[in-house]
Amino acid sequence: MNTLDVIKARTSYRGKYKNTPVSRDDLTKIMEAGLAAPSGCNTQTTSLIAVDDPDVMARLRGVIEPEFKVSSPAMICVLTQYIKSYRDRCFSVHDYSAAIENMLLAIVDLGYESCWVEGQITDDDAIGRKMADILGVPQDYELICFLPVGVADEPTRFPKKKAFGERAWFNGFGG
Amino acid sequence: MNTLDVIKARTSYRGKYKNTPVSRDDLTKIMEAGLAAPSGCNTQTTSLIAVDDPDVMARLRGVIEPEFKVSSPAMICVLTQYIKSYRDRCFSVHDYSAAIENMLLAIVDLGYESCWVEGQITDDDAIGRKMADILGVPQDYELICFLPVGVADEPTRFPKKKAFGERAWFNGFGG
Repeated sequence: MNTLDVIKARTSYRGKYKNTPVSRDDLTKIMEAGLAAPSGCNTQTTSLIAVDDPDVMARLRGVIEPEFKVSSPAMICVLTQYIKSYRDRCFSVHDYSAAIENMLLAIVDLGYESCWVEGQITDDDAIGRKMADILGVPQDYELICFLPVGVADEPTRFPKKKAFGERAWFNGFGG
Repeated sequence: MNTLDVIKARTSYRGKYKNTPVSRDDLTKIMEAGLAAPSGCNTQTTSLIAVDDPDVMARLRGVIEPEFKVSSPAMICVLTQYIKSYRDRCFSVHDYSAAIENMLLAIVDLGYESCWVEGQITDDDAIGRKMADILGVPQDYELICFLPVGVADEPTRFPKKKAFGERAWFNGFGG
């Protein structure tokens, strides 16, 4: 699909998924898109784990629900390492956010839907750490987000957004 | 262009730009792509200012250089508001990073190049605040990044990245 069309078609899908499997080839393409994102001083702080094994999916669901309902047949787990990349600055959040956005676009491009699930697994109840333990993730990595991947079984919806002129201008604020 | 091709073709361009103008139509499409990015609980914390007026560009160059050489005929300035969107959490960095990645892809899709310039303008010398003052940006917004926009006058280069298998796996860390 055309890039600008995909950017506009992407939305946060929270409905049910069909159980149509997601191919390894597609999961690989999605992760390649994530790894192609820029990172502060090319520090490459983001790593990824695609999950498509039904047993592993079931174990992950066991710690994620009821916080978030997961009906997709696959997901991508996003890991970060907090590393300083520029003077005393750490750009890991920027790095993984750009990687996540690339993957969300690749997911839509390939005919699937997804949703950026982060706040729900990085709160005090530390669901992300429980997921990381299931996946054998070392302590110096944090699992901060997962992206369900699958074919939507319900219509997509778009949140109401402010008008262009309330958030974007030319040559000066409010211009 | 196809989404996955654009994702792979995007790179941080630091060479000279041609002085071929960037049309208002293209700058609008780039900003629309930025505003289409998701934001934590749809808080829409990111705002944008496209600059194509030669006088305004000259004044901005005056505060940016010599920290960063700007030869492009246009740029997009990225503003954020730090607003809590989920319990006590603020996702503004995530929000603007996703918006920036969308814009970088739109820029490449439309035949231009760019580079995510953030660390250089948000250090102690506060170049971002000087740029914001030129653009009349209120104090409750921070100008945290700019994206040069123009046609490349030199070849693009790609940084060396780790192999896929060092950063991406299936069903478990290192798997």
